Amino acid sequence: MKLGLIGLGKMGGNMRERLRRAGHEVVGFDTNPQIADVSSVEEMIAALPSPRVVWVMVPDAVTGQVIEEVAGFLSEGDLVIDGGNSPWYNDEAHAALLAQKGAHFVDCGVSGGVWGLQNGYALMVGGPDEAVALAQPIFDALRPQGEFGFVHAGGHGAGHFAKMVHNGIEYGLMQAYAEGWELLEKAPQVVNVPEVFKSWREGTVIRSWLLDLMDNAMDADPHLDKIEGYAADSGEGRWTVNAAVDLGVPVPTISAALFARFVSQQKDSPAMKMVAAMRKQFGGHATKEEADG
Amino acid sequence: MKLGLIGLGKMGGNMRERLRRAGHEVVGFDTNPQIADVSSVEEMIAALPSPRVVWVMVPDAVTGQVIEEVAGFLSEGDLVIDGGNSPWYNDEAHAALLAQKGAHFVDCGVSGGVWGLQNGYALMVGGPDEAVALAQPIFDALRPQGEFGFVHAGGHGAGHFAKMVHNGIEYGLMQAYAEGWELLEKAPQVVNVPEVFKSWREGTVIRSWLLDLMDNAMDADPHLDKIEGYAADSGEGRWTVNAAVDLGVPVPTISAALFARFVSQQKDSPAMKMVAAMRKQFGGHATKEEADG
Amino acid sequence: MKLGLIGLGKMGGNMRERLRRAGHEVVGFDTNPQIADVSSVEEMIAALPSPRVVWVMVPDAVTGQVIEEVAGFLSEGDLVIDGGNSPWYNDEAHAALLAQKGAHFVDCGVSGGVWGLQNGYALMVGGPDEAVALAQPIFDALRPQGEFGFVHAGGHGAGHFAKMVHNGIEYGLMQAYAEGWELLEKAPQVVNVPEVFKSWREGTVIRSWLLDLMDNAMDADPHLDKIEGYAADSGEGRWTVNAAVDLGVPVPTISAALFARFVSQQKDSPAMKMVAAMRKQFGGHATKEEADG
Amino acid sequence: MKLGLIGLGKMGGNMRERLRRAGHEVVGFDTNPQIADVSSVEEMIAALPSPRVVWVMVPDAVTGQVIEEVAGFLSEGDLVIDGGNSPWYNDEAHAALLAQKGAHFVDCGVSGGVWGLQNGYALMVGGPDEAVALAQPIFDALRPQGEFGFVHAGGHGAGHFAKMVHNGIEYGLMQAYAEGWELLEKAPQVVNVPEVFKSWREGTVIRSWLLDLMDNAMDADPHLDKIEGYAADSGEGRWTVNAAVDLGVPVPTISAALFARFVSQQKDSPAMKMVAAMRKQFGGHATKEEADG
Repeated sequence: MKLGLIGLGKMGGNMRERLRRAGHEVVGFDTNPQIADVSSVEEMIAALPSPRVVWVMVPDAVTGQVIEEVAGFLSEGDLVIDGGNSPWYNDEAHAALLAQKGAHFVDCGVSGGVWGLQNGYALMVGGPDEAVALAQPIFDALRPQGEFGFVHAGGHGAGHFAKMVHNGIEYGLMQAYAEGWELLEKAPQVVNVPEVFKSWREGTVIRSWLLDLMDNAMDADPHLDKIEGYAADSGEGRWTVNAAVDLGVPVPTISAALFARFVSQQKDSPAMKMVAAMRKQFGGHATKEEADG
Repeated sequence: MKLGLIGLGKMGGNMRERLRRAGHEVVGFDTNPQIADVSSVEEMIAALPSPRVVWVMVPDAVTGQVIEEVAGFLSEGDLVIDGGNSPWYNDEAHAALLAQKGAHFVDCGVSGGVWGLQNGYALMVGGPDEAVALAQPIFDALRPQGEFGFVHAGGHGAGHFAKMVHNGIEYGLMQAYAEGWELLEKAPQVVNVPEVFKSWREGTVIRSWLLDLMDNAMDADPHLDKIEGYAADSGEGRWTVNAAVDLGVPVPTISAALFARFVSQQKDSPAMKMVAAMRKQFGGHATKEEADG
Repeated sequence: MKLGLIGLGKMGGNMRERLRRAGHEVVGFDTNPQIADVSSVEEMIAALPSPRVVWVMVPDAVTGQVIEEVAGFLSEGDLVIDGGNSPWYNDEAHAALLAQKGAHFVDCGVSGGVWGLQNGYALMVGGPDEAVALAQPIFDALRPQGEFGFVHAGGHGAGHFAKMVHNGIEYGLMQAYAEGWELLEKAPQVVNVPEVFKSWREGTVIRSWLLDLMDNAMDADPHLDKIEGYAADSGEGRWTVNAAVDLGVPVPTISAALFARFVSQQKDSPAMKMVAAMRKQFGGHATKEEADG
Repeated sequence: MKLGLIGLGKMGGNMRERLRRAGHEVVGFDTNPQIADVSSVEEMIAALPSPRVVWVMVPDAVTGQVIEEVAGFLSEGDLVIDGGNSPWYNDEAHAALLAQKGAHFVDCGVSGGVWGLQNGYALMVGGPDEAVALAQPIFDALRPQGEFGFVHAGGHGAGHFAKMVHNGIEYGLMQAYAEGWELLEKAPQVVNVPEVFKSWREGTVIRSWLLDLMDNAMDADPHLDKIEGYAADSGEGRWTVNAAVDLGVPVPTISAALFARFVSQQKDSPAMKMVAAMRKQFGGHATKEEADG
């Protein structure tokens, strides 16, 4: 089928390529004219048959305004899919905006990173059945070709909510592996840490794709000497903890992973300045050894 | 080759079977005479050619006394392998005990559970090169048949230390997945939680063997209504946190996972009784809504 | 001065009493006519001199509608103080609503519980200087009579934000004490736990009012046998964690305290059901001792 | 009474002074001859009447050898008190060593820091009744002069165990306050953070001696610009977490506080290097915004 695709960055660009390989016609727009197929959203829309299907794949910060712009050109029966890492709590409003034009909305969480072009993208979608059905050929082209990798999770917001939880889990998994690695690196009796991780890729309880990636990383840099201990966070970890708090769900490991990233982003820890200040207060000009009262 | 194997429970019994399928001769002893091949450790030892190789696969609580008994029958060049979930910090003493007889010691962490018979067991071994070499044919039979699943991690204790960290990571991974599942179950907009997890088995960042097991569990019992929220802990999570504390390594997710198990083992939480008592003190006979001062 | 006071529950009722003891005239309204001085908000407003000062002390869930009702009767120069445990993020809107009438708004966090009548209430206020000045005589009557206990923390929302953080800290403090108590109770060598806590009330680094309350609680029930390990949460712990997440501030202890309360509110832990399910999957019909793979 | 005191550092030196003010005769020994009263342990012992009472107040690392040296000079009925921050699990062995000479042993946890000289030291003691009775005049001189501040917690080890838990709680309290402070510092609407903390010293639920110290610290340096976010740990936090793990007690806030200190001691976080490495692996040469897959 023929569809419009807005946002041709690392994710969107690869998705255009995977869709084309599957025989779909993609009219891509991006603010960078060097990678765009058309020079405006309007031009993109004009090139699409009715009902028009537009996939939005842009940073969260601009998703709202892009959907608004697109909505201005749409009519009865058209469809917008938001495939970005958008918070689930905006989806209802986007659906309502499009409904004013008689158009559909589907939210779609997309996982897979740079490996998705080759392996397929795992998709989690939310929205009414008829809207999802309209886009099914696109989903089928993007998803992995095995029996898994696609789910219609529920109504509007369910796709982004599921993707958010996926990323929250991801935070916890990465932190757990990282803690274990740090511990092995510090253990005097374990002499070959990269080999230990490599061995775990088969037969163990903790084998996973993330473990494979760790092994790849250590193949290139055995003790990660070239990498700084700084981890950004892209929003979904925060939304996960906030959603858990609002729903009364304890998430000790996911929040611990998020907070470890926050700390890594700080040059100096304000909280630890205060702890140090208190120790100084009760311990005098205490040496490090004597201060805990 | 021909070896002795002490402990024929779920793990040891399956390992005997896998070794025999690979052509090794196993003389198995167990305190349960119905599953044992011989009626005593002494008889087992007598059946082995020199240098004698004995694999000990018994619960941590009795490992020490079993190794002591075996040591009494060994001589120069023999080998004992401790494949149990033993703490790494006992390995040096066991090695020293056997060294008095001129015998070798190798510690071996074994992962794989009930799936090991079919898929192979991931092995992490610690000890001197010559001792490990002596047992290599056994390791080769037990390990998975791909390129991973075996590592000689370092000297005495390195195998059990690596296995301990493996299990510590396992605690963190399981808790992170479990938190994400609880959150999805509570989210009103996600209607098909088991399908979401099933979809994640392919193309996602969080795909793993544990995720496959979760999917299996939900196939049998979609919302786990038949399972109690009680998780025992078998020692290695505790040793991991203690080792991390001793080495100054922060392990917030692994400890959170361990503590969640501790709480699950309590009928009523003493700590929360005290929190409730304090709230009552400052809030009077407070209603739940008013007490936080 | 003469003021209106809406909400005469445990907090509001005691505050009316403390204000009257200080010589202020309080016209109190409550939906419970048995404790109210007037039979309607309108009647209460009619009894006040201009500029009218109205203190709102109602549960968070109804604060918005009460302020709206009050606003309908106010005019230029009047003042509403929200002394409830309201979230800071609603304060701007309430201020704007009142500004339409030319009326002022001040948010005021109030701490002290049932002890406030006697000891005074610690007050944290937010709003413009002139509005705070208008209510200063009331604040002076309510606050403790020492040199501390009152702060003008900033503009609209600052009072409730400061109170929210106060309660977030309170969660962390209570949990830390409670963990220490549980640990002492489990230690075989410490035979007199209540006496240990009592001794800590003087000379130690951890002496505090909360510690005094713990001692009181143990005087009445030495091992808290009569108290259930259930701790409600009244909103401010959740808001604190959400605010921290939004501002990128790591709050590992405050969130741990909140999650411990969440767990205490559950009959059975969904997350631990999933952990148990995974252990069963890889361990077979595993005994508790053998399952961690 | 007359007693020997070994270790005249910040704690021991002040304790000698407080004991002398109370009328006791103190024969102090230290490896620094400039502050010592005698030139050797032997000389110190020789100056004491029988039964001899020796208070040991030295760093944990040398406590064992000091007690051993002292034991060499003691006989039936003498008493050694270990007042240092020693781990409780060494106390039994020290008691047994002294028992070989017929001498007593008492372990005594001491809290109070540099303020103890003036305010008294909170004391937690462990040991048999008759041994504690022998030293009671010393305890009475050192302790605060109010009704609290001293406890005979149980047998050998109980004093140090109670002191250890005291410090574990202290870790949690300090971290909770520090998190709240960091959050207030980051909140745009709260303009006067030091004033907020100062106000909390009276009437609030969270008032405490540590809060008073925070206020003192901010009086000198309102935003702690001169203090580095580095917090050492002196052993007792680690022992607390290890003891909790061994006894199956969940300590999420105390461990979180300990781990925050560990992180503050690291120049770069190994764990976060691994998290960053994984993000790079699945996100390609990912920008920070795009990497969480």
